[in-house]
Amino acid sequence: MYHHIKKLMYTVNVGTPDVKFGRLLLEQFGGANGELAAAMQYTVQGWNCVDDLARRDLLLDIGTEELSHLEVVGALIRMHLAPLKTDREAAYADPLLSIAGGGGVALVDSANNAWTANYLSVTGDIDVDLRSNIAAESRAKIVYERLIDHTDDPGSIDTLQFLMTREITHLKAFTAALESLEKSPFSIGFLKPTPGIVDEFLNTSRGDGSEGDTDMRGPWQTSFGLHPIDANGGTGDGLSVGDINGKIKGEERGKQDSGQKATTSVGKSARQYQDAENEKSGPVDRILEAVRG
Amino acid sequence: MYHHIKKLMYTVNVGTPDVKFGRLLLEQFGGANGELAAAMQYTVQGWNCVDDLARRDLLLDIGTEELSHLEVVGALIRMHLAPLKTDREAAYADPLLSIAGGGGVALVDSANNAWTANYLSVTGDIDVDLRSNIAAESRAKIVYERLIDHTDDPGSIDTLQFLMTREITHLKAFTAALESLEKSPFSIGFLKPTPGIVDEFLNTSRGDGSEGDTDMRGPWQTSFGLHPIDANGGTGDGLSVGDINGKIKGEERGKQDSGQKATTSVGKSARQYQDAENEKSGPVDRILEAVRG
Amino acid sequence: MYHHIKKLMYTVNVGTPDVKFGRLLLEQFGGANGELAAAMQYTVQGWNCVDDLARRDLLLDIGTEELSHLEVVGALIRMHLAPLKTDREAAYADPLLSIAGGGGVALVDSANNAWTANYLSVTGDIDVDLRSNIAAESRAKIVYERLIDHTDDPGSIDTLQFLMTREITHLKAFTAALESLEKSPFSIGFLKPTPGIVDEFLNTSRGDGSEGDTDMRGPWQTSFGLHPIDANGGTGDGLSVGDINGKIKGEERGKQDSGQKATTSVGKSARQYQDAENEKSGPVDRILEAVRG
Amino acid sequence: MYHHIKKLMYTVNVGTPDVKFGRLLLEQFGGANGELAAAMQYTVQGWNCVDDLARRDLLLDIGTEELSHLEVVGALIRMHLAPLKTDREAAYADPLLSIAGGGGVALVDSANNAWTANYLSVTGDIDVDLRSNIAAESRAKIVYERLIDHTDDPGSIDTLQFLMTREITHLKAFTAALESLEKSPFSIGFLKPTPGIVDEFLNTSRGDGSEGDTDMRGPWQTSFGLHPIDANGGTGDGLSVGDINGKIKGEERGKQDSGQKATTSVGKSARQYQDAENEKSGPVDRILEAVRG
Amino acid sequence: MYHHIKKLMYTVNVGTPDVKFGRLLLEQFGGANGELAAAMQYTVQGWNCVDDLARRDLLLDIGTEELSHLEVVGALIRMHLAPLKTDREAAYADPLLSIAGGGGVALVDSANNAWTANYLSVTGDIDVDLRSNIAAESRAKIVYERLIDHTDDPGSIDTLQFLMTREITHLKAFTAALESLEKSPFSIGFLKPTPGIVDEFLNTSRGDGSEGDTDMRGPWQTSFGLHPIDANGGTGDGLSVGDINGKIKGEERGKQDSGQKATTSVGKSARQYQDAENEKSGPVDRILEAVRG
Amino acid sequence: MYHHIKKLMYTVNVGTPDVKFGRLLLEQFGGANGELAAAMQYTVQGWNCVDDLARRDLLLDIGTEELSHLEVVGALIRMHLAPLKTDREAAYADPLLSIAGGGGVALVDSANNAWTANYLSVTGDIDVDLRSNIAAESRAKIVYERLIDHTDDPGSIDTLQFLMTREITHLKAFTAALESLEKSPFSIGFLKPTPGIVDEFLNTSRGDGSEGDTDMRGPWQTSFGLHPIDANGGTGDGLSVGDINGKIKGEERGKQDSGQKATTSVGKSARQYQDAENEKSGPVDRILEAVRG
Repeated sequence: MYHHIKKLMYTVNVGTPDVKFGRLLLEQFGGANGELAAAMQYTVQGWNCVDDLARRDLLLDIGTEELSHLEVVGALIRMHLAPLKTDREAAYADPLLSIAGGGGVALVDSANNAWTANYLSVTGDIDVDLRSNIAAESRAKIVYERLIDHTDDPGSIDTLQFLMTREITHLKAFTAALESLEKSPFSIGFLKPTPGIVDEFLNTSRGDGSEGDTDMRGPWQTSFGLHPIDANGGTGDGLSVGDINGKIKGEERGKQDSGQKATTSVGKSARQYQDAENEKSGPVDRILEAVRG
Repeated sequence: MYHHIKKLMYTVNVGTPDVKFGRLLLEQFGGANGELAAAMQYTVQGWNCVDDLARRDLLLDIGTEELSHLEVVGALIRMHLAPLKTDREAAYADPLLSIAGGGGVALVDSANNAWTANYLSVTGDIDVDLRSNIAAESRAKIVYERLIDHTDDPGSIDTLQFLMTREITHLKAFTAALESLEKSPFSIGFLKPTPGIVDEFLNTSRGDGSEGDTDMRGPWQTSFGLHPIDANGGTGDGLSVGDINGKIKGEERGKQDSGQKATTSVGKSARQYQDAENEKSGPVDRILEAVRG
Repeated sequence: MYHHIKKLMYTVNVGTPDVKFGRLLLEQFGGANGELAAAMQYTVQGWNCVDDLARRDLLLDIGTEELSHLEVVGALIRMHLAPLKTDREAAYADPLLSIAGGGGVALVDSANNAWTANYLSVTGDIDVDLRSNIAAESRAKIVYERLIDHTDDPGSIDTLQFLMTREITHLKAFTAALESLEKSPFSIGFLKPTPGIVDEFLNTSRGDGSEGDTDMRGPWQTSFGLHPIDANGGTGDGLSVGDINGKIKGEERGKQDSGQKATTSVGKSARQYQDAENEKSGPVDRILEAVRG
Repeated sequence: MYHHIKKLMYTVNVGTPDVKFGRLLLEQFGGANGELAAAMQYTVQGWNCVDDLARRDLLLDIGTEELSHLEVVGALIRMHLAPLKTDREAAYADPLLSIAGGGGVALVDSANNAWTANYLSVTGDIDVDLRSNIAAESRAKIVYERLIDHTDDPGSIDTLQFLMTREITHLKAFTAALESLEKSPFSIGFLKPTPGIVDEFLNTSRGDGSEGDTDMRGPWQTSFGLHPIDANGGTGDGLSVGDINGKIKGEERGKQDSGQKATTSVGKSARQYQDAENEKSGPVDRILEAVRG
Repeated sequence: MYHHIKKLMYTVNVGTPDVKFGRLLLEQFGGANGELAAAMQYTVQGWNCVDDLARRDLLLDIGTEELSHLEVVGALIRMHLAPLKTDREAAYADPLLSIAGGGGVALVDSANNAWTANYLSVTGDIDVDLRSNIAAESRAKIVYERLIDHTDDPGSIDTLQFLMTREITHLKAFTAALESLEKSPFSIGFLKPTPGIVDEFLNTSRGDGSEGDTDMRGPWQTSFGLHPIDANGGTGDGLSVGDINGKIKGEERGKQDSGQKATTSVGKSARQYQDAENEKSGPVDRILEAVRG
Repeated sequence: MYHHIKKLMYTVNVGTPDVKFGRLLLEQFGGANGELAAAMQYTVQGWNCVDDLARRDLLLDIGTEELSHLEVVGALIRMHLAPLKTDREAAYADPLLSIAGGGGVALVDSANNAWTANYLSVTGDIDVDLRSNIAAESRAKIVYERLIDHTDDPGSIDTLQFLMTREITHLKAFTAALESLEKSPFSIGFLKPTPGIVDEFLNTSRGDGSEGDTDMRGPWQTSFGLHPIDANGGTGDGLSVGDINGKIKGEERGKQDSGQKATTSVGKSARQYQDAENEKSGPVDRILEAVRG
């Protein structure tokens, strides 16, 4: 259940309204990496995360805070867009918001594209979702930084610095939540990758480029067991792909419940219920049996 | 420049076509986490990455391989959807592909939503983009695993196991590329978060829930300097937000050129050119001056 | 600022999960007339409604409640979709949620179209926005009723009956908020329609139809001063449109502040500030001067 | 069947073309509240409205007129955008229309978002659809008013005043069509809201806000039987939700056929056919039986 | 100006309603190649085509007829979808139309994707637009054929055969309109392609494929002056691209006015006005001067 | 399988970066008629075209070349957009790319709409697909011409002239591929249009227009057997539609294999397999039997 307190999470002050800057700010209101995207991604992930109630709480804590951020950045934008309501020339800074929206904010990005749930990454796998959130927080941080770079208004900078700071807070929290699962960073889900093929780094972009670039080498070709393989442009050979024989069982399980209190057993029983279900459902049953060896 | 070799990167075999499973597979052809999304995300990131030609090469290597994967998964889908062309009942498994597409593949997901570039994350900051790619590979891995869980056809499993394996290869490579930048995981861009506020974990989802969940504690509230703060539902207080005074300079720089050969100087000169530009442009100049101390 | 209490606004109970019904329910989670659409429409309208702080409060009261409804309907859907996680056949009831979403809810409608802010109507004119909300509540009511018609599960019916009931509550509140403005239902904004032309009901669909329909007459042709005009198919004549001579001033003003407490003066001064601004801005100034006579 | 007469419904004159204003005008050509949206919403509603042939005629009368309006506003826009074809600088007022469209109109809004059927509200319930139309006409009216506010060109003002006037005509007609159903404004569909709960206005946005707003009271909390309930932020209690026991029968029926001629019996027999069908279909049958008492 | 006659352009009869087939039919109502797409593409092209009033008339003739087709196919779909209103099981054939739409038609395709103006091709160049229309009619024809292939209902077949037939009528008309321009099929616009390079067919997909395909030869490599060039996969060489030196003037002009009556001079003066404008606008002026030699 | 060579297909040089022009150029990167749309349309068509391996090769040859064009136009855009990275004022030329994208290219059009697969036409009928491609190349050609018209930079013009030239190359190749099928331009698919009705050109837009247009006559009313029919606005009569009696068999077959080598028999056997399948599937069988007489 949600409650709204009229007080903003951060007090917003604006010197001179700057309608062009207000339009830039829309990126964090209704944009791909903005506050609604963050709020919805974490909240829906949280609602789905019924096997790990501790991390569910984490997701709802941060998801709810992002709603408060949406309100803060919305207030900042309204102040900058205020001249749209009374100054005909200013309206050309954002025709859509001026004519259709009466000069207020709307759930659009800086190019006035309507917000879409296509921006969200929700897989229902907590391990994967946390990675999506780490990436999302990184993107939001760099976008706030660029916005700060585009204004000299001290009040706007303060608000944006606050919001940017919180993205790092969340980045830390999501990283801690991922690390406390104690899984290898390359272990995802239940099925293992095929040995051999998993370690072949395929060099498929070759030759010398127009901007001084050439065929490079880097640690990404030799770390974590990787080694480079040259794709032969003339024949298309290069990957030793003949030796796959079905799926491979045995990925390590993460400590999904590391932060749980009384809910550990719930998580376990949920999994047991799932296993019991599988026994009835035939093929899935056999697959899971296989992956556990 | 691109070249196409008619040979598939992995030979695709299908036992009995299964149109319903073919429809599921579309998720990896034209879906949010599918092969076109991967190919386009890495390739466009690579084209934009002119300051770090080594990681640019990495992005184009993997981006190009994903195009080959798109071709492989497309071939697999076509075999499964073949009955759409001749069996009227089968057509109802995917009306859109049957009637509008003549039974072939299309750039849609498993719900027949048209592919959109809204699926892509391209920020132009290599540090951030690599995080987006790590998350994207994780998502693609779990989707392939689920697809394997939904078929018993050995040929389909082999192809999907191959494609799933390569996602882990890329996950390793992107992780190596990120780590070799030698930045703190919580240092993004040039501007620092505000001390104090950055370490406050706000507990804004509270009370006891309907599914046995309660107000949890976890390492995400106490790691990396974090400590929990309780949001007071009645007043909205809880965050010590009064003390922000402008932006803060001095994030560490990453070794963006760690894997570069002769191109290091190009990267540097690009930065110097940028600095020179900034001197002329006023406010940006002053900001960058500030962030360097 | 937002707070989340883990307790659901209405306790959700489901007998036997019904994945097909779960998919229908998505219409109220991520659909055009669903709870997110309601929450966002009223909340964004509220944030923009700075000239009428009383109705702003109304919009935020209801907007926040709709967020709680989103959580309730999401919980109901998750229970119905639970078999997607363990039963391979069930997955075909919703391939997208099964494969990409792991069997959880997502911000999509019953056809798995991603939620888009195109569903929202936010004009920044409180008079108009209230009408949009009355229509939105009516649509949501009929959709809940249809959902109730499609299940026999008592727990699901109870939850849906609760949510449906609240739409009527909101319908009443928005109607009261509109009526208390004490404007004519045909007076919108500042500019008047052109007399004469405004009362001509144009009969442009004529003749006898294939389904027994013929050229009908109804109160909509004779009420509120209207009278019917026959469009002449052969010539296209029919509307007396030659006599428009510019815009017409003088729409009545509504009591936008009828429910306000101490904020009445704020609303007024906001308007005065706007007027002052207009005096400087030239053409808008002259227009507003004209509309006031 | 449709016929086109080359004569415009209103003669369009433009003084000096104003490409920026032309772009604003696109809002009423391909925008969310524009003429195509109106034409399609009413026309598709009309085609679906086979149980009330009189109101079907109304919907097609107005839907067809909106097509003629689309043509008129399109002509106005083309005149304003004419310089896009010959003046390179003018092209920057709308790059998409200049480069991709050759300087003509396109079905996009003022931000060049492609028109989408997501803008439409079509529920197939005449009672509800009329409310959607009343809201749609109100929005279109205010948008035309704002466009008039953004130009000094007398010819453009005349055309826009004509189009704005017709929205009020339609607002009157849709209101008459709704009122002549003689239903309570709070009676929608067949199922009744739960007594008690329906009258609780939940005060969920509380406290003092940053813009001088406080916790307000208004007629929307006390009209039509409503009374305010305070949501308790600390516990989430506040709604008396324990007493719902299934759905409730007995909403009043509207006079859907009030304007019909010979078609009354058709409407009735359509309903009888539906009832007969229900008898065969089990649960729906029982539900309808219940709602009639 | 538009007029609507209630009589359908073709009388629609349906034997037994088939909800699954009704869903397929949506492809031609709100799909990418459906009747609304055709109506809007030709109509908007026609409104923009002010330099060739004869072909403008053609575009509006066919655009208007497609509106009548939209009505016909809508009537056919409604009859097939009728059971959605009364049969709970039937609703699962199209959850969106059942729950949100009440069982009527909506502007969506067979996968329930909302219609979007992204389906339209409108360039404002009559020569190009006619080609887009020829392609659009071909697509619509094959879609109708496939729909006929998916039903045995004689009434449905008759209606679809009528609609399919008309697409060929329009195909003929658009072809005649294109040919009567008397331009070379490879002459588009004002600027010529660069000689030499224009005739090099680049063989960039090479080798032997997995489905028995090999590196083929066909008339498309040797017709109209073309000759094949092998892309060298190892080096990327293959196109003689070093010799471009700016743009080349002199494409032939088409007889855009071949079907015009009194309007020829209007077309000419429009062009003269454009030329006069160009003289003032500098660079465009010089370009047009160049292309005329 | 795909390979990438770092060398661009055409060397790109830019004099002074022009951010506004860079934005226009996006139309050919991520726009409806741009290089990604071309690459994906031809490539997906090619992958689906398993019955005509020769034309499949053609589609993949050109599809792959368009990928190389995407890279070229992307490089051109990046050079023009470079100032977005360092000049705060320049950022307003494209807020989305500046703030969200860091000043690089993105898969959006000149109005910053995200690329969508809705731009593609893929029917799986080679005859029809080639027509779509001819139209697509024509549109791309005129868009490149307009871009050339909007710059004076010699390097940009050279690159655009190269890309524009290649569209004509492809236009020739697709035309040759279509003509070598040796079908009538009005024969599509298997089913014939109904004689009589197919030749009636319906004159449904009549009267005198506001821009000097009147009811025109042109060769499109009298060529290929067509003759004009006047729609009677008052009654809606005009088409002799009473005489359709089911579908009509017997469209001519094209030489789909005219350019094939050893694969002719594969194509034939594919068809034979389809026929064999049809024999089992009942109604489709009977239909195909009918169309062959």
